[in-house]
Amino acid sequence: MPYEVKSLNEECGVFGIWGHPEAAQLTYFGLHALQHRGQEGAGILSNNEGQLQRHRDLGLVTEVFRHEKDLQKLSGKAAMGHVRYATAGSAELNNIQPFHFKFQDTQLGLAHNGNLTNALSLRRELEAQGAIFSSSSDTEILAHLIRRSHHPEFMGKVKEALNTVKGGFAYLLMTEDSLIAALDPNGFRPLSIGKMSNGALVVASETCAFDVIGAEFVQEVKPGQIIQINDQGLHVEQFTDKTNTQICSMEYIYFARPDSVIAGVNVHTARKQSGRILAREAQIDADMVIGVPNSSLSAASGYAEESGLPYEMGLIKNQYVARTFIQPTQELREQGVRMKLSAVSSVVEGKKVIMVDDSIVRGTTSRRIVRLLKDAGAAEVHVVIASPPLAYPCFYGIDIQKREELIAANHSVDEICQIIGADSLTFLSQEGLVEAIGHDNLCLSYFDGIYPTPLYDYEENYLKSLGGKSV
Amino acid sequence: MPYEVKSLNEECGVFGIWGHPEAAQLTYFGLHALQHRGQEGAGILSNNEGQLQRHRDLGLVTEVFRHEKDLQKLSGKAAMGHVRYATAGSAELNNIQPFHFKFQDTQLGLAHNGNLTNALSLRRELEAQGAIFSSSSDTEILAHLIRRSHHPEFMGKVKEALNTVKGGFAYLLMTEDSLIAALDPNGFRPLSIGKMSNGALVVASETCAFDVIGAEFVQEVKPGQIIQINDQGLHVEQFTDKTNTQICSMEYIYFARPDSVIAGVNVHTARKQSGRILAREAQIDADMVIGVPNSSLSAASGYAEESGLPYEMGLIKNQYVARTFIQPTQELREQGVRMKLSAVSSVVEGKKVIMVDDSIVRGTTSRRIVRLLKDAGAAEVHVVIASPPLAYPCFYGIDIQKREELIAANHSVDEICQIIGADSLTFLSQEGLVEAIGHDNLCLSYFDGIYPTPLYDYEENYLKSLGGKSV
Amino acid sequence: MPYEVKSLNEECGVFGIWGHPEAAQLTYFGLHALQHRGQEGAGILSNNEGQLQRHRDLGLVTEVFRHEKDLQKLSGKAAMGHVRYATAGSAELNNIQPFHFKFQDTQLGLAHNGNLTNALSLRRELEAQGAIFSSSSDTEILAHLIRRSHHPEFMGKVKEALNTVKGGFAYLLMTEDSLIAALDPNGFRPLSIGKMSNGALVVASETCAFDVIGAEFVQEVKPGQIIQINDQGLHVEQFTDKTNTQICSMEYIYFARPDSVIAGVNVHTARKQSGRILAREAQIDADMVIGVPNSSLSAASGYAEESGLPYEMGLIKNQYVARTFIQPTQELREQGVRMKLSAVSSVVEGKKVIMVDDSIVRGTTSRRIVRLLKDAGAAEVHVVIASPPLAYPCFYGIDIQKREELIAANHSVDEICQIIGADSLTFLSQEGLVEAIGHDNLCLSYFDGIYPTPLYDYEENYLKSLGGKSV
Amino acid sequence: MPYEVKSLNEECGVFGIWGHPEAAQLTYFGLHALQHRGQEGAGILSNNEGQLQRHRDLGLVTEVFRHEKDLQKLSGKAAMGHVRYATAGSAELNNIQPFHFKFQDTQLGLAHNGNLTNALSLRRELEAQGAIFSSSSDTEILAHLIRRSHHPEFMGKVKEALNTVKGGFAYLLMTEDSLIAALDPNGFRPLSIGKMSNGALVVASETCAFDVIGAEFVQEVKPGQIIQINDQGLHVEQFTDKTNTQICSMEYIYFARPDSVIAGVNVHTARKQSGRILAREAQIDADMVIGVPNSSLSAASGYAEESGLPYEMGLIKNQYVARTFIQPTQELREQGVRMKLSAVSSVVEGKKVIMVDDSIVRGTTSRRIVRLLKDAGAAEVHVVIASPPLAYPCFYGIDIQKREELIAANHSVDEICQIIGADSLTFLSQEGLVEAIGHDNLCLSYFDGIYPTPLYDYEENYLKSLGGKSV
Repeated sequence: MPYEVKSLNEECGVFGIWGHPEAAQLTYFGLHALQHRGQEGAGILSNNEGQLQRHRDLGLVTEVFRHEKDLQKLSGKAAMGHVRYATAGSAELNNIQPFHFKFQDTQLGLAHNGNLTNALSLRRELEAQGAIFSSSSDTEILAHLIRRSHHPEFMGKVKEALNTVKGGFAYLLMTEDSLIAALDPNGFRPLSIGKMSNGALVVASETCAFDVIGAEFVQEVKPGQIIQINDQGLHVEQFTDKTNTQICSMEYIYFARPDSVIAGVNVHTARKQSGRILAREAQIDADMVIGVPNSSLSAASGYAEESGLPYEMGLIKNQYVARTFIQPTQELREQGVRMKLSAVSSVVEGKKVIMVDDSIVRGTTSRRIVRLLKDAGAAEVHVVIASPPLAYPCFYGIDIQKREELIAANHSVDEICQIIGADSLTFLSQEGLVEAIGHDNLCLSYFDGIYPTPLYDYEENYLKSLGGKSV
Repeated sequence: MPYEVKSLNEECGVFGIWGHPEAAQLTYFGLHALQHRGQEGAGILSNNEGQLQRHRDLGLVTEVFRHEKDLQKLSGKAAMGHVRYATAGSAELNNIQPFHFKFQDTQLGLAHNGNLTNALSLRRELEAQGAIFSSSSDTEILAHLIRRSHHPEFMGKVKEALNTVKGGFAYLLMTEDSLIAALDPNGFRPLSIGKMSNGALVVASETCAFDVIGAEFVQEVKPGQIIQINDQGLHVEQFTDKTNTQICSMEYIYFARPDSVIAGVNVHTARKQSGRILAREAQIDADMVIGVPNSSLSAASGYAEESGLPYEMGLIKNQYVARTFIQPTQELREQGVRMKLSAVSSVVEGKKVIMVDDSIVRGTTSRRIVRLLKDAGAAEVHVVIASPPLAYPCFYGIDIQKREELIAANHSVDEICQIIGADSLTFLSQEGLVEAIGHDNLCLSYFDGIYPTPLYDYEENYLKSLGGKSV
Repeated sequence: MPYEVKSLNEECGVFGIWGHPEAAQLTYFGLHALQHRGQEGAGILSNNEGQLQRHRDLGLVTEVFRHEKDLQKLSGKAAMGHVRYATAGSAELNNIQPFHFKFQDTQLGLAHNGNLTNALSLRRELEAQGAIFSSSSDTEILAHLIRRSHHPEFMGKVKEALNTVKGGFAYLLMTEDSLIAALDPNGFRPLSIGKMSNGALVVASETCAFDVIGAEFVQEVKPGQIIQINDQGLHVEQFTDKTNTQICSMEYIYFARPDSVIAGVNVHTARKQSGRILAREAQIDADMVIGVPNSSLSAASGYAEESGLPYEMGLIKNQYVARTFIQPTQELREQGVRMKLSAVSSVVEGKKVIMVDDSIVRGTTSRRIVRLLKDAGAAEVHVVIASPPLAYPCFYGIDIQKREELIAANHSVDEICQIIGADSLTFLSQEGLVEAIGHDNLCLSYFDGIYPTPLYDYEENYLKSLGGKSV
Repeated sequence: MPYEVKSLNEECGVFGIWGHPEAAQLTYFGLHALQHRGQEGAGILSNNEGQLQRHRDLGLVTEVFRHEKDLQKLSGKAAMGHVRYATAGSAELNNIQPFHFKFQDTQLGLAHNGNLTNALSLRRELEAQGAIFSSSSDTEILAHLIRRSHHPEFMGKVKEALNTVKGGFAYLLMTEDSLIAALDPNGFRPLSIGKMSNGALVVASETCAFDVIGAEFVQEVKPGQIIQINDQGLHVEQFTDKTNTQICSMEYIYFARPDSVIAGVNVHTARKQSGRILAREAQIDADMVIGVPNSSLSAASGYAEESGLPYEMGLIKNQYVARTFIQPTQELREQGVRMKLSAVSSVVEGKKVIMVDDSIVRGTTSRRIVRLLKDAGAAEVHVVIASPPLAYPCFYGIDIQKREELIAANHSVDEICQIIGADSLTFLSQEGLVEAIGHDNLCLSYFDGIYPTPLYDYEENYLKSLGGKSV
């Protein structure tokens, strides 16, 4: 069986709130701020005095909640929501979260950001015991573990379940009387706690969701922690002490919104700093610096300032790109028809251009953009990448292609430079990246193949082939 | 009758092509590049050997053409399209262009970007003669004038009609055998001609539409020109010699896409230059420069480079803002809930910030953004505007509010500064604007109230009250 | 040019009301009762103190008015509506009525049931004078004639226009202060006036629309009459005295709903009576009588009672047939897959069956049903038709196929019997039809080719070929 | 806790096919013929060489499968489908069948028509063991029982599960290599086997589904039988020998389509016969007989023929009644506005009318129709009901209201007659019903309260209050 990482991994965003009369509406705004973390589908589950209600669908948050009534039915002072990442082929309603489990004796809401490394074996084991799953998502496993736990108390059941699942996870659970959040022992995914002026407590994948609703940052959920929010306030404890903080470095590089703060570091600032360091490392003679919109603009402006070169708008991204639109035929593409990105010939014509991007995955996008710039008349295109070469996949929740598709896993920097048609290619060093971010509690396995945990179901048939190693 | 400028004015985009087997599809991509000029509705009309077909609807281009079949039915080697600006209340299908007139003896397609100053009297006159209009759009007037002309030849009828309508207009017409374009004698709106590698000729409101389809810029349509494109190629002539070039300066300041070129000047470059000049004019002591996304980023980077201050990302625009979404209640807004724009506190906290914006219309947006930045901890917010104070309305196609609503028509700069809550407020000088753009064939009536043409229907009951004057 | 009657003719329904606070909602219910007269599209136009508002769309009434708000925006105490017949290929929104004309000085609503015989020449003439039509519907012509009339008063203009158009028409017009209805000099189409308990006056194509809204029948609009309903009540006058009542006999035979009353005759009763007379004329030896659902059930029960044979349910029509559904492939059809109609083998097996239908147009449906019954085991199928052979097209508003497609125009009864595979075939005599309806103010031109009016645009190139003649 | 029968019961339809290249399309047509058994939602699951695919949604079959592609993706030579009855409040996608269970080792499709009497206890028991249900439907229980069975073979697991569930059920299961059907030991619901000309085997709730696809009836699934259809053909066995045939009499009276055959008896024939017997039992002096469309037309024509009275169309049902449409306000209803049913005054005015209906549940509909007829001028309205008084609820799959709502459970015939405003009221005798149907393997518990099985979960808190008794 060919190993297919892609369909297992996912990046997502979660948001929860307890103690506000407009809980569902605030969740809607919070999810909207987290929309960049997942565009396949979205859902909100509210808690009205113990009665859980849910609305979910495929699409963007503004599409799923198209009508006021979609939110109005989600009454109650607590709510939680989820945005799901688009992975090709798996777009079915059953997988859209939060999940809503109804039992004869109680109800449960569940949402998840991350990826389990022992999902396959847990699922196999549970099914052998008669469990029936309603989705192909790994998330559901936690609910089965909780329901099968023999611990006498609910929080005990949850902690038992959290110690059974392995990998990267940020969970939100809604019970009849509490909102619960938990983070895996490595803290791969960001998860923060905020507070509104009325005292309502909020949990979100990124702090940018606090800003849109006017909440203040309180603290981060720490690796191995489980927190419970209810009418008695916030209760924090560890479900395990065996922790080892390894924040996903790709959150800083690409995923998170520039206005978010992770482990005390503003993402824009880290990116701008990476651009500055890159400028020092690269030392390229050129006329101008341009960034690939939108994720690389911070790094590009840092590069420009450090190098003293002008920062120009040599690439324009169409703001109206919809998720689904009619694509140009292959023939039209060959005639130069392009939708998303345009190169500005009046800016780049005859110029030596430094093009800053955040990362290279398969190389096809970089090749396309270099080509765009050269067609627009750029004399030279020097590609500088604000992260080290991506050579290893992720098992903790980011949908990085299987290793065969990672260009840096199979080619040297010179080869990549030639493939993408650039006049030079420079990657940020791993040290530079760590320096730019400013702390080293980072998971850097994409770059060095050193995984901070055992890989369980992925171990045998995958890791050996990699040349990477787990601790 | 209270005078209401708003409902009469509109900004739009047009695109036409002759001589390509995928004419409608290329028009779709061209309109997509012009989407920023109008988001209310869109349409495409194709010409298949003299048979005209049309598809139009309310919504963005990608919404109107949701399915491949919407384009497939628009066969033929020629096509034209239109995007229409959203003006509150007038959103009805009847007004979405191109118009498609079917006669017993022939057919006609018609699209329009601009605003006529004698529309009201022409319409009254035509109706008195029995004419029935199918829309509330001024555009239809041209078709009635053409059909009522007694000139023996079609081009003669069109020229007669073009000399009857007054104001700002860029027209596209599709007959059974030609694509026709015409520009008003002042050339208020941009309109350019391009060519594809297969020889197909293209006309578009902005050159950015050429880039997406791989066409090369050939020349601009000049004021007072009518051009005819058909199987014999391009034929250019003047329908009037009484011309006086007055390109709308707001195209450079705000409307056009930064990658477009108008009268030989790249829009991004003009904006960046306006930021540079503004920096020289303003001389503000501060820690950083930030731009209001997206339209003011060019000017902000120019300001930063000229001033030597760092260019930072202190404001973030949510990329997923849909045209229609559920709005926060007033109560939630007061609690700080905001959707579109966030201030990045980790960037601006404790800092003296220069906030660059392109223009101030009513002042409410500026006040909101200054407030955002101060709430996020900015120590000082100095607002600098990359254009002079907007004190007079436009009658040639841009939807600028009625004079009562223009804050600069009723308040001094100091008053405005106080209203928006800024620590200082600086506008670019009119000379600075002209210097930044680099030529003076500009309509600057928004700033000085000097209109380059008589105002006809608007004259009597409006202009007097203004204090402005027409030539 | 091949002559194509189909695309010109249409059957429709109109409804108007003046003087009820829920005018639009009552129009909705009235149109719903008239839905059988047209399923392509529907619209309602309301009059709120002189302000006209309209909502229209393609689809059934319940589809066009899907949401309460669609009706709520149509405020006012007067309203009118229209349902439009589905004619292949012309399904475009522009043709859906009521039309809503907005002028600088006034507004006008217009709806039409019927077909003009001089539409082509009028349209040609009007266009030569500069008129522009916004639809391909003939209905619009009346509006152009009214607007071009030089009569000093509006009602005078309308009467002038009504005397210019020829053919079959029932018009409704809504002005700022009146609802106007008019019927052609032959009264081809039914049009009745009713009254609600609150005094509101109602006009509708069929009386069945009165029953659903609880209105009482007052009187019919007579041929050549124009009626005006406003706050002063009902005003009736003749726009012409040259009248000759010729009610479309197909209304009794097929189109009208069985519960409607036309010229004092209940449609079900006329149909049942036609079945009785047919039984006397046919004298067939058989085991049972079955009707083709739904339009032939009245005639079938009349036939059964007169003949003394049992009336059985040998054919079932699926009640859930949607206008659009996925059709079986040709291959599946050949394997016996059928959607709309089923024969009940346990009823007809081994039996001699009399199958009653209302008419035969092309013969294909009859052949299919005979085949169905034989496949279900019927020993003999005797087809009896409750109308004479249809041999001539209609020019007054019914979409009967061009003459080449009318089987009875090209084949003898014996030939038709053989083509449809029946064991015998009997048509009702023309005398029998007149006797069944009970009066002879009928247009019977479909059967005898004698047209009660000149045919104008249709005359030359069509009628000669027919062998029919106009008076 | 107030006992609420309604939300537990449901009437549905199932269809399955094995061995035809167009399996899903034939299922679509089959479900369309079964649409009267459930209008809330529909779904089809296909089997393509062991790969199961499903499409389901809320709405009618033609709405759920709106596009060709909805069917095209359901490839394979086997398929099964389900139509679900609309029960207020439970309309959610999760409950729409067929269910599709995906396991690590296999897949399973499941659909169900009926109601379990021990669902509550089974569900409670399964949840106590850790089971998680994904819907509120009882159907899912069977899947959990199968998966938890320790029988070594799949068919053994199914049989074990079938012997655990109690009540009324017709199940369809799709495994990777077989289509399985099973009927409860009483055979409450009809379930038949048919064959297509190519040898494909078909299973359906009613034989009318065979007619539309051109299949021939082979045999019925007998009570207590489980059948397996696969490439080896049809295999029939008993999962229990403790059977007692009790076909739901309401299938003959109301639910089934008139062209279906149940236990060798055509439904129309049984209904017509019930009308004949009713005529003999009732002996009413009147002018005409009318049926309430559509379900009572067979009985009405039987009554008319036996009594010698004319069968008239005194009530008309609007054919275009959509499932959802805008309802008249209470005020308009009081003014006589009605949508679905009209009385034909020209038919019934001044007449003594016998109105035949199939059954009376709450009496509100009957009262409304009597009122309609009297308002239309009927001199007398004699209501005759083609079934005995409905005094007891159903626990085997029909959604009959709770006992408090059954008018015949709380009132004498004379009282009911007075409540509905009729001049007389006659019910068919129970003997008459049995005679009309022609066999006595019938469940008649609605009429006499004698239930053929223990009632399990319903027993204690309900049955005692009833006065009915189980065997």
